[in-house]
Amino acid sequence: MKTRAAVAWEAKKPLTIETVDLEGPKAGEVLVEVMATGVCHTDAYTLDGLDSEGLFPAILGHEGAGIVREVGAGVTSVKVGDHVIPLYTPECRQCKTCLSQRSNLCTSIRATQGKGVMPDGTSRFRCEPTKPQGNQIFHYMGCSTFSNFTVLPEIAVAKVREDAPFDKICYIGCGVTTGIGAVIYTAKVWPGANVVVFGLGGIGLNVIQGARMVGADRIIGVDINPAKQEMAKKFGMTHFVNPNEIGTDKVVQALVDLTGGGADFSFDCTGNVNVMRQALECCHRGWGESIIIGVAPAGAEIATRPFQLVTGRVWKGSAFGGARGRTDVPKIVDWYMEGKINIDDLITHTMPLEKINDAFDLMHEGKSIRSVVVF
Amino acid sequence: MKTRAAVAWEAKKPLTIETVDLEGPKAGEVLVEVMATGVCHTDAYTLDGLDSEGLFPAILGHEGAGIVREVGAGVTSVKVGDHVIPLYTPECRQCKTCLSQRSNLCTSIRATQGKGVMPDGTSRFRCEPTKPQGNQIFHYMGCSTFSNFTVLPEIAVAKVREDAPFDKICYIGCGVTTGIGAVIYTAKVWPGANVVVFGLGGIGLNVIQGARMVGADRIIGVDINPAKQEMAKKFGMTHFVNPNEIGTDKVVQALVDLTGGGADFSFDCTGNVNVMRQALECCHRGWGESIIIGVAPAGAEIATRPFQLVTGRVWKGSAFGGARGRTDVPKIVDWYMEGKINIDDLITHTMPLEKINDAFDLMHEGKSIRSVVVF
Repeated sequence: MKTRAAVAWEAKKPLTIETVDLEGPKAGEVLVEVMATGVCHTDAYTLDGLDSEGLFPAILGHEGAGIVREVGAGVTSVKVGDHVIPLYTPECRQCKTCLSQRSNLCTSIRATQGKGVMPDGTSRFRCEPTKPQGNQIFHYMGCSTFSNFTVLPEIAVAKVREDAPFDKICYIGCGVTTGIGAVIYTAKVWPGANVVVFGLGGIGLNVIQGARMVGADRIIGVDINPAKQEMAKKFGMTHFVNPNEIGTDKVVQALVDLTGGGADFSFDCTGNVNVMRQALECCHRGWGESIIIGVAPAGAEIATRPFQLVTGRVWKGSAFGGARGRTDVPKIVDWYMEGKINIDDLITHTMPLEKINDAFDLMHEGKSIRSVVVF
Repeated sequence: MKTRAAVAWEAKKPLTIETVDLEGPKAGEVLVEVMATGVCHTDAYTLDGLDSEGLFPAILGHEGAGIVREVGAGVTSVKVGDHVIPLYTPECRQCKTCLSQRSNLCTSIRATQGKGVMPDGTSRFRCEPTKPQGNQIFHYMGCSTFSNFTVLPEIAVAKVREDAPFDKICYIGCGVTTGIGAVIYTAKVWPGANVVVFGLGGIGLNVIQGARMVGADRIIGVDINPAKQEMAKKFGMTHFVNPNEIGTDKVVQALVDLTGGGADFSFDCTGNVNVMRQALECCHRGWGESIIIGVAPAGAEIATRPFQLVTGRVWKGSAFGGARGRTDVPKIVDWYMEGKINIDDLITHTMPLEKINDAFDLMHEGKSIRSVVVF
């Protein structure tokens, strides 16, 4: 079949809108009509050439929502017409990791996903006529939601309720789940806990509303941009610390003071390894846990004195919020529909596919929280 | 009263045996006749001048066992004649940390303990006649077990069964609990887990027997000294890796291969920050936890790429094995008496107080696992 898609031909170049060939679903796969997709920092990270493993040409996008239009042989968990969210972290429920019940990082299709192809080793996207780069176009993070239609393994779609609006719940495909999940599934923040959130972008705001949802006590936001206070307060932030105002070297002590001894939980949503250290060291002696969510530049390393850990602090990370895609994502959609979490205010821009490059520009200029492309 | 004690007059000098004055117990305190004491690396660390906060002159020693000979006003939890193990990590059951139920690092008397004095701010040890350094002698880690008699706060002694031999259970006052506790209380190793232990000294051997006790599957020891294999096997080690044989840069991959994907738990018992990194990175993606037990040199830092944590590894530390002194130490004594753990083979040398400097020499020469001084 033919589908309209935004193709990234090479790093650091705008996407172009193309009509490409898409091969239909094979056994265990589904064809999804993408109705809406968010444009995430990770897409920009790859497009900007910062991901050394980035493949081109590719159809980027990994934060979508849509409708199953065709199922391959043997597909049993979804049917034509089901509303789904594509999962860049699938959930096979059969691999060593899924069966461990200790991690959401399903490994069943990891190898091929990293190579930009489907589990059978082939790409299903081709351009016609052939371009100088050849006619094969790579998949991206197993999703390629910048295409109106895409194919996904059955284990990489979460079936969600049909009354949820695509142009909002697509954000649950990455950012919302990454932030809220880190609070609920990775950290398991308890009611009454003191929480510190470094970086008040989209992920940080979702961490904040996750902390509010589970009944955290103080929720302290840290950002060098005071303009971010207003939205963060709306999402549940109770205190704000600006490192530029108090001095970077005084941030840890200020947070220890504000929390009466240290954070029960801290979250890095910046990707800055120096901030990650502060996030660990502001944790309470004896039990404070710091969770790294942000993606650091290639080669960057975190460091601290081991004494910080020996005296009881714990250093962790979170990917896709520790959420199991097929099990937990539908619940988060429910929470949105029930009004427990706010997504609407985070989606600052909505645009058609033809304007997708604007979404990257808005992100780079710091003018958006989340832009959503509606097909 | 007078007591015989080994006094450390200054760093890097042998201890001398002295008769010193000891003031009796005040309210909430007990006088303990120390019957036996281990000589631990931490004593040597201070005596060698490596601890920048080390105070002299002092009576070192923190790994003892003895009998309560007198109790101060208001003491209710122990009585004269009770057998006890002094606790450098007390358990007040009333401070924020004790009440958190998330950490064993009781803070009730931490400030004075770090200053070498009792909770009322005074030292109870004096030398007579006065020496050039003055006549006050500091307490050490709140214990000073290199003295035949010592005073301790009631909250800093664990009452233990009376049929347990002092010259063995004194080792539970530090080394045994540090190793076994890290497995049981900090890591909570589960039956069938794969465990990697870096450093096969006394702590490493106790980690190994702790892992065996809770039913770990593979227990892999890592040490550059192949002579340590034999004892480690006796304590439960199933596999041995010698970095000098396979190359330091191949250690992580070798451990990942041996564990079929990575360790469920790893323990650093070396204090070497480069080894701590290997210990983290040999852990299983998704859930592997690395626990730092070893004490690093002043100023040394641990480092890794944050990706190691984002993909599910957890970095932790353990002090006194995460054990609550008054609650857990008596249980470990029971385990020894029931034959669940082996202490006898770890105590390689026993000597009278007059020979205590030999214990430090044996340690520095790598000829002992644990030396015990019997009064």
